[in-house]
Amino acid sequence: MAFCKKPLSGRSRYESLIKRCCYLPSGHNGACDEFPYIHHLESVAPRVAAKIKRDATKTTGAAWKSVDAGPNRIDRWVMLLPDAELKKKYGIDIAAMKTAVQSKLREKAASYDDCMDVAGKLTWAAYQMKNAPKPPPEVFTYLSERFGNMEDASTRCIVCRDFLDFNMFEGARRGRANIETAHANPRLHNPDNVGFAHRECNIAQGGLSLEQFYDWIAGILARVRAGVSAEVDAPGSHSSTS
Amino acid sequence: MAFCKKPLSGRSRYESLIKRCCYLPSGHNGACDEFPYIHHLESVAPRVAAKIKRDATKTTGAAWKSVDAGPNRIDRWVMLLPDAELKKKYGIDIAAMKTAVQSKLREKAASYDDCMDVAGKLTWAAYQMKNAPKPPPEVFTYLSERFGNMEDASTRCIVCRDFLDFNMFEGARRGRANIETAHANPRLHNPDNVGFAHRECNIAQGGLSLEQFYDWIAGILARVRAGVSAEVDAPGSHSSTS
Repeated sequence: MAFCKKPLSGRSRYESLIKRCCYLPSGHNGACDEFPYIHHLESVAPRVAAKIKRDATKTTGAAWKSVDAGPNRIDRWVMLLPDAELKKKYGIDIAAMKTAVQSKLREKAASYDDCMDVAGKLTWAAYQMKNAPKPPPEVFTYLSERFGNMEDASTRCIVCRDFLDFNMFEGARRGRANIETAHANPRLHNPDNVGFAHRECNIAQGGLSLEQFYDWIAGILARVRAGVSAEVDAPGSHSSTS
Repeated sequence: MAFCKKPLSGRSRYESLIKRCCYLPSGHNGACDEFPYIHHLESVAPRVAAKIKRDATKTTGAAWKSVDAGPNRIDRWVMLLPDAELKKKYGIDIAAMKTAVQSKLREKAASYDDCMDVAGKLTWAAYQMKNAPKPPPEVFTYLSERFGNMEDASTRCIVCRDFLDFNMFEGARRGRANIETAHANPRLHNPDNVGFAHRECNIAQGGLSLEQFYDWIAGILARVRAGVSAEVDAPGSHSSTS
């Protein structure tokens, strides 16, 4: 899909870093629009739409709101700046943060274009969940042309590969959705690498890539099936205690 | 092992609920002692000893310190009381808590005897980790007689069944140990069901029993190996995006 890409203005304090632009097809009629595909979702499932935009474009979520966790919810493209510039321009002092926070922030960095693609891909995936609202024809056409064929009830958790149900977004209103945005490789934020996952699956994957995660659980199962015991009452164990 | 079981006094506000007692062998010499096996560990690895006593006897850890998470670190046996008594005696209003907190607290309930057995079992397991301090002969004898033969570097993570290294307790001083106390069945706190696990393994297991956890990851691997795709760049996927 060739985009219009006419510049648009935004309201964040980091606007000077990027050129927001129109993601309607080039030669479109009517006003330019950065998120032309999300307005239907904003009207029928506003919290899901807000979650998609937030997860696609911001560094961190609610679990990060602690004093020494560093800045919360910064535009991902801000984190592409060198440390010196972050400090001078925005007062973000990376060197003063804990190592774990530094690397967490750094791995969330992504370009504006990638973030825009992720937002679209997530919307495309959400509409293909079981029990998802039906997109209006113009949205269906737009998303299909941009991200590929769409099929009802076909979206799977990227970790466990089981089907996802749109209703599991419900917790989004309490800050604890049962569906989370997930990354096949936690250090890459682009549409080929991002999808949805069950909350439990996303937690279990932790900081591993999916490849590492599958290797890890395969190792666990191999040991369990070989009867390796850890002295508790679990399958394959033979406890000597009690 | 037959215990002395002479009553001892404690300092918690819940002392009236239990009869603390001596866990030295019956007929022992010298003073009675509730934790006769832990003093060596208290001197060489005080934070590990404190963690063992805390995890064995208290309901919840550091991650629980939020306003609406309910009471923090209550003696596990307190949670065996009926709601009405908890409220009247200790001002703990279970009905006023969120459902998730209620069930979390309830599943931590355990008798004093079980907690004492868990503390001993964990100490026994800790001494058998790679790079663990060597217990003095009287502790070695006591723990072997109470919990079974002890072997150097033999303690495994109860989840992944790989060996644990005592040095991974280090984070205990920053409230984030890489070894955590774990339960084969999260709803049972007794020595046959409790052991140590890697932090990541404990997190991945979540609220599942080990049996459920192994079933769950076997299902994931089966789908991955069958080539079920979730439209991301991961093993077995064939993305149609970008």
